[in-house]
Amino acid sequence: MKSNQKGNLLTKMKISTKLLSLIKKNKSFLIAGHINPEGDAIGSVLALAYGLKKIGKKDICVLSKDGVPEGLQFLPSSRMIKQKAPRKEFDVLLIVDCNTLERTGFKDLRAKHTAIIDHHIPPADEDKPELYKRLSASFIDAHAAATGILVYKLLNALKIPIDKNIATNLYTAILVDTGGFRYSNTSPESLRISCNLVKSGAKPWDIAKELYESIPYRSMKLLGLSLATLDKKDGIAWITTTHDMFKMTGATAEDAEDFVDFPRKVKDMEVAVFFREDEKDVFKLSFRSKGKINVQKIAQDFGGGGHFAAAGCRIKGTLHEVQQKVFTAVRKAIRKDIKSK
Amino acid sequence: MKSNQKGNLLTKMKISTKLLSLIKKNKSFLIAGHINPEGDAIGSVLALAYGLKKIGKKDICVLSKDGVPEGLQFLPSSRMIKQKAPRKEFDVLLIVDCNTLERTGFKDLRAKHTAIIDHHIPPADEDKPELYKRLSASFIDAHAAATGILVYKLLNALKIPIDKNIATNLYTAILVDTGGFRYSNTSPESLRISCNLVKSGAKPWDIAKELYESIPYRSMKLLGLSLATLDKKDGIAWITTTHDMFKMTGATAEDAEDFVDFPRKVKDMEVAVFFREDEKDVFKLSFRSKGKINVQKIAQDFGGGGHFAAAGCRIKGTLHEVQQKVFTAVRKAIRKDIKSK
Repeated sequence: MKSNQKGNLLTKMKISTKLLSLIKKNKSFLIAGHINPEGDAIGSVLALAYGLKKIGKKDICVLSKDGVPEGLQFLPSSRMIKQKAPRKEFDVLLIVDCNTLERTGFKDLRAKHTAIIDHHIPPADEDKPELYKRLSASFIDAHAAATGILVYKLLNALKIPIDKNIATNLYTAILVDTGGFRYSNTSPESLRISCNLVKSGAKPWDIAKELYESIPYRSMKLLGLSLATLDKKDGIAWITTTHDMFKMTGATAEDAEDFVDFPRKVKDMEVAVFFREDEKDVFKLSFRSKGKINVQKIAQDFGGGGHFAAAGCRIKGTLHEVQQKVFTAVRKAIRKDIKSK
Repeated sequence: MKSNQKGNLLTKMKISTKLLSLIKKNKSFLIAGHINPEGDAIGSVLALAYGLKKIGKKDICVLSKDGVPEGLQFLPSSRMIKQKAPRKEFDVLLIVDCNTLERTGFKDLRAKHTAIIDHHIPPADEDKPELYKRLSASFIDAHAAATGILVYKLLNALKIPIDKNIATNLYTAILVDTGGFRYSNTSPESLRISCNLVKSGAKPWDIAKELYESIPYRSMKLLGLSLATLDKKDGIAWITTTHDMFKMTGATAEDAEDFVDFPRKVKDMEVAVFFREDEKDVFKLSFRSKGKINVQKIAQDFGGGGHFAAAGCRIKGTLHEVQQKVFTAVRKAIRKDIKSK
């Protein structure tokens, strides 16, 4: 879970002997993470692949539909990840850090057996896709801060020793999903396991340097130009990245990924908004709440979606038009919040 | 230690029974942190004061010459901290997170007994001030990531239970001195103790929110204007905060404290420089090295100082003059480094 708000945690499952024997007894494994992968997805699938190799599994294929983002290519063996599924049939399909085939980006992955290893809340029974009927086993724990924690527990249960490569992948997974040990999911468990991973060879500074200290120049320049537009009013702080700024710096939308964090960090604000002009007069908006205002509702009114504290939408119009619409909506939500108290 | 480079760690000392009995037997305590205090200093002195109160010590005075920075005033009981030393004589003076009286900002503090609790490398024997002759006991461990870790161990040795207030102070101490668990001093020990502190009631998100998500608007606006000046050449990335920007935003030098972190985070750079124009044509410079170039040497040549990876100096002149001087010096250092390989 990427959110810094505690989710509505529904399930807690221990590692089933079924899953353990499924792994022990079979030979070939297809491991799939999710689309738009971050550190938890890539770190978890790689650690799992390493672990399975350590117990003699030779036929392993690791899938990531969108490949490995530039910033995660430092992860040990990230090159083993494939973007296309082989045609052959595998014994076991492991769906990792997500809980539907759709989220893997491969709608018709098949294997003799299928298992989910994930920390997201599974779909409600009435929404469960067909996949759930043919699950052989699963390890789903929505209390876990990261899927990396579940992989750590699984490898331990399989008595697979954690080496430096596995530790680096899992530490990165936990670090990314706890927002660098900052979000409220930074549980004693995630710190205890991270402690063990450092003992096993993970290097916190080397990993942090790759994740937080290797920002492309174009991205940092774009941040500078965007952050210079910072403004605030009525409890809202916002910044804008214009189409011209993208052209000037040669940066892409991906380079502006976390820009909304900056207005969010401004003291005494309730809501942060990031206006990203992807095309002339077409804006992608990101909203962040500091905890009181449900920005999901605001984004929904503009046809978008998200969570209570983090949401987004797309709006067409000039910057001025778009901002007026959005500020009116956010101010209304803030006034409503004040009235309800 | 604030540096993200491993220091030359000289001493490792266990908690002496002398220190334990000094605390147990005496009644009144004067606890002093250091000037320009950060989270480790303030968190450590407050946790210590809380702990001593828990074992019945009623006469405790906590000193910080420069008070408590705005961003640390959320720490439990930060208001108990005094900027002036009382005239009375205390039984025990505890010097915390520093190792000379000078560093406390109170040159003539005196008590019946004196002890140092610190994780900095002590002065060499020939440089040891007179204070060292009258030390009754000490707990100095330059291997520890933070003085907060030493206070944690001391409270444990005194069998003082860690409550939420102590945990919040010590977690903050460790978080700040490990750069949010990012620097290479993020040892298994610091993660293990942090795990225990979260179990004892420290709330990672609440603390992170105060430390990293409560930036004054004027400071963030100043960052935006400054970061828009980002430029790079020959392995050097730099930004500038002009005197006009300070005037425009109403921000102060303190608001620009960590700005050098931003050019430092730019990929493929060797050295980051931050030019801060404190007065018209008077610049405070901060240098950061990514690990290869010794910026202390560069700063020293301009009359400044610091460490291998983090240093600073002051130079007078127009921005253009100052930059030309500095870039010539940095380029020379980079060329020298390349030649030596």
